[in-house]
Amino acid sequence: MLDCIFCKIVRKEIPAEIVYETEHWLAFLDIKPVNPGHTLLVPKTHFENLFDLPAERLAEFGGVAQKLARAVKMATNAAGLNLGMNNGRSAGQLIDHAHLHLIPRFENDGHRHWHGQTTPTKNELMEMKEKILAVLSE
Amino acid sequence: MLDCIFCKIVRKEIPAEIVYETEHWLAFLDIKPVNPGHTLLVPKTHFENLFDLPAERLAEFGGVAQKLARAVKMATNAAGLNLGMNNGRSAGQLIDHAHLHLIPRFENDGHRHWHGQTTPTKNELMEMKEKILAVLSE
Repeated sequence: MLDCIFCKIVRKEIPAEIVYETEHWLAFLDIKPVNPGHTLLVPKTHFENLFDLPAERLAEFGGVAQKLARAVKMATNAAGLNLGMNNGRSAGQLIDHAHLHLIPRFENDGHRHWHGQTTPTKNELMEMKEKILAVLSE
Repeated sequence: MLDCIFCKIVRKEIPAEIVYETEHWLAFLDIKPVNPGHTLLVPKTHFENLFDLPAERLAEFGGVAQKLARAVKMATNAAGLNLGMNNGRSAGQLIDHAHLHLIPRFENDGHRHWHGQTTPTKNELMEMKEKILAVLSE
């Protein structure tokens, strides 16, 4: 993808602080980190998001994420780490090239992740379950 | 783990709206959803978080997550979907049994994910890169 900023980073056409590179994966520092060490992991091939990743990349994804998460946590002396992947504009995805956020976390760093949790009734939960099961059984 | 609430769900000792089950994985609805359809994916065996998952589970993780994400998105007519995994108490992990959040997202649903992004200098980014590379090369 000629105009994709992450493809340009993959092709080394624009600079980035690259921390990990294999045949199929590249990881580099987010230039707008939530915390220092905030890293992005991307497949080198352009896929839009999770829904488009092929089986071979999915099979590698967890292992690469763990390896990188351990390194980021250790390098930053973090107490914890969030993985996050935003798929679709309404989910906060800003660059349409699949990417996993690795965000090191520190005690009382002031970040809070999600707000507005609700408490559905048992019936509402059961109805939702049936909908998901129906899709999965198609 | 006798006292782990997710292990109890895996053993069917406490109820949950289970939407997916295989030999090694279980997915069920979060009872405090951020949005309707918010689903949790857990390995049936007790591992504390990402850092403890063995290679076999990691190799399955991406594929299972994609399959489930597609179903949740379709069942809820969502516009997008967030994957999130909190590893460690300071990262917001409340139950010490590895779990992936799948959160369907809708246009203007009011959720905003992260706040307080910073803009480090080039030097700060380079220093961070060196730290991570040093850990990865150990």
